[in-house]
Amino acid sequence: MIRAKRDRHSLSDAQIDWVVDAYTRGVVADEQMSALAMAIFLNGMEPGEIARWTNAMIDTGERMSFADLGKVTADKHSTGGVGDKVTLPLAPLVASYGVAVPQLSGRGLGHTGGTLDKLEAIPGWSADVSNARLREILADPGCVICAPGADLVPADKRLYALRDVTATVDCIPLIASSIMSKKIAEGAGSLTLDVKVGSGAFMKDAQTARALAETMVRLGKDSGLATSALLTDMSRPLGRAIGNALEVEESVAVLAGGGPADLVELTVALADEMLTKSGVDHDDLAERLADGRAMDTWKAMIRAQGGDPDAELPRATHTEDVVAERDGWLTETDALAFGVASWRLGAGRARKEDPVQAGAGIELHAVVGDKVSAGQKLFTLHTDTPERIPRALEALTPGFTVGDDEPAERASVILDAVK
Amino acid sequence: MIRAKRDRHSLSDAQIDWVVDAYTRGVVADEQMSALAMAIFLNGMEPGEIARWTNAMIDTGERMSFADLGKVTADKHSTGGVGDKVTLPLAPLVASYGVAVPQLSGRGLGHTGGTLDKLEAIPGWSADVSNARLREILADPGCVICAPGADLVPADKRLYALRDVTATVDCIPLIASSIMSKKIAEGAGSLTLDVKVGSGAFMKDAQTARALAETMVRLGKDSGLATSALLTDMSRPLGRAIGNALEVEESVAVLAGGGPADLVELTVALADEMLTKSGVDHDDLAERLADGRAMDTWKAMIRAQGGDPDAELPRATHTEDVVAERDGWLTETDALAFGVASWRLGAGRARKEDPVQAGAGIELHAVVGDKVSAGQKLFTLHTDTPERIPRALEALTPGFTVGDDEPAERASVILDAVK
Repeated sequence: MIRAKRDRHSLSDAQIDWVVDAYTRGVVADEQMSALAMAIFLNGMEPGEIARWTNAMIDTGERMSFADLGKVTADKHSTGGVGDKVTLPLAPLVASYGVAVPQLSGRGLGHTGGTLDKLEAIPGWSADVSNARLREILADPGCVICAPGADLVPADKRLYALRDVTATVDCIPLIASSIMSKKIAEGAGSLTLDVKVGSGAFMKDAQTARALAETMVRLGKDSGLATSALLTDMSRPLGRAIGNALEVEESVAVLAGGGPADLVELTVALADEMLTKSGVDHDDLAERLADGRAMDTWKAMIRAQGGDPDAELPRATHTEDVVAERDGWLTETDALAFGVASWRLGAGRARKEDPVQAGAGIELHAVVGDKVSAGQKLFTLHTDTPERIPRALEALTPGFTVGDDEPAERASVILDAVK
Repeated sequence: MIRAKRDRHSLSDAQIDWVVDAYTRGVVADEQMSALAMAIFLNGMEPGEIARWTNAMIDTGERMSFADLGKVTADKHSTGGVGDKVTLPLAPLVASYGVAVPQLSGRGLGHTGGTLDKLEAIPGWSADVSNARLREILADPGCVICAPGADLVPADKRLYALRDVTATVDCIPLIASSIMSKKIAEGAGSLTLDVKVGSGAFMKDAQTARALAETMVRLGKDSGLATSALLTDMSRPLGRAIGNALEVEESVAVLAGGGPADLVELTVALADEMLTKSGVDHDDLAERLADGRAMDTWKAMIRAQGGDPDAELPRATHTEDVVAERDGWLTETDALAFGVASWRLGAGRARKEDPVQAGAGIELHAVVGDKVSAGQKLFTLHTDTPERIPRALEALTPGFTVGDDEPAERASVILDAVK
């Protein structure tokens, strides 16, 4: 099989079924799968191969089903970015319309944050939820954000860890099958994908992001899962907060009817997409955010997982302000630079077993398009380990620019859609 | 580094030195090296990278030196084929001129035979020779064929085993660096390469074989090792015997002044090349084979390693004749088909730890260009495990043809040279 893919042949259904299963059982060795993954990375896979690979991954574990819930279920997945806390306000917003939203989420690795890391900043909150309890919470209050169980696509756990150390992560067939195997196995009624584009995302350009989105939408539809994707801008951080507790705080602001415009726009657009696919009539979603019903659902969800939604969030012990050196317009805040800086401050982890700092991260007091004056506070860095500030600034400083000219306004955080 | 090679960049000297050393020490994991090997397989290496990689491999072990022997030393390497027993008559022939010939050889894997497996058919003979004893034998009788010590390029032992199970063997940069690291580390005064071309060889076509030969000759010369290569025909078996004891028998026939013409031609051509590079005047080499001096050196070499050159060789317990079904000309004996058949009869091994049968193999009573009649014995299969004969015949039968027309004569077993 390695030889076949190496020599640009297609793999047969039987070959794919065998190798994915055999690798998960330990019959195919890591060094053989990594050679195959590199051959796939460099020589690609046909749509039929990707679909079969995805199914073979699903078949290594158990499929979930929410058919007996008596509710429509809607799932959402983001390919990950900097300041991307959308799941936090989105899940309760959609659930407030009576749609069940199971969000099996991950932890952060590298410069992109992880949804579970963010929620763990809330005192008492736990990501571990049994399947039985998950169903209870989906019945009421209707949304849950938790870690997937061990039986959900075990092949992916093993393969993802391998790809991570063998430079075979950023490859559309392997990304698409990794994401979609889990989403199809989750068994929700529909799936809305948020495919990020730009320096802070896996996919740096719109063309590659669109190719990934199309591959995933096709995989979903071919499996009978109503799937669509939005392509959204990740060339700059989303919102004005990066980090764990800082992002929870900003999410709560959105649930209280406030929050930064781009974050609200994306939350509303994704909710609209999820509710439409769920066949649910919905009023003005921004109003729903303002009227407290989404906030009520949020608080109930946090309590259902042991958290105290009213507790004070942890703060980092040290802060450092970055000020403008001149008058002008803030013309650039590069998502990757801000993501790496926040990571270095302690918000992210370098290895899976590392802890994260709940309070670490970056507040943006100004965003692209703001007029600033010399000495004005632009950003505040938060960390419990102030010795890391110089290295964070090293990443951050080349990533923002104050210029003479007002930059063109970004029309929307949403760049495109694949339906 | 994996990412760099994956993205078609060149690896720096420091990167290559690090990864080869770190892999040998177990710091770089098998799954990482196999991903890198696949990236090298698919994206190649520049000549400078191959040279550095070769040197880094050498530096994982010890370099040998024969400078204190007081004799010219000449080394030879074959890329391996079917019926290729040339080392056996060649080493004593060259040594009979006073040139020391250290032949650190391997065992067979797959359908190609291994020189050590062949010699182990001789009662008492041992491939294990200490470095001190190796020097004594090189002083007198002057040639030794033995297994390399553990300190000779340990990186290659590890990497070759990995490549074998990850479909990354047939790749010029990795083949060339594997062979040449060992040959340069051996420290002989010159090196003559026999690069096989055809179905029974690693390199199936002349163009690829020539590219490999050029890469290896360049690596040798750049390291100060006088290196040249002959490209020789491996589209059909060499000589008329395939197997371990059967090939020893045929080699002894050559040392007695007889033997098949193609085997004698190649032995003489390689000896000429080795002696010329060693600056040794030599008379008619075919005469030297006939006058008994090469045979005397052979017998002394076998005795020096514990063997009895006059002992009866083991014979397989069962034989099966293949006869011509019609009158005509033998127009094809495909090297790969004969190699696989002999392997299945027990002459080769599927896994490194398998034993081989000393007596198993194939005798060719007719070769391409011979006129044959219906019922005439063409080949005799030898094996201790007659239950394997049907599967051997399955491989053999499509590999030979009796046709109506006399095939064109092969001008020479030697196709080309790279000097």
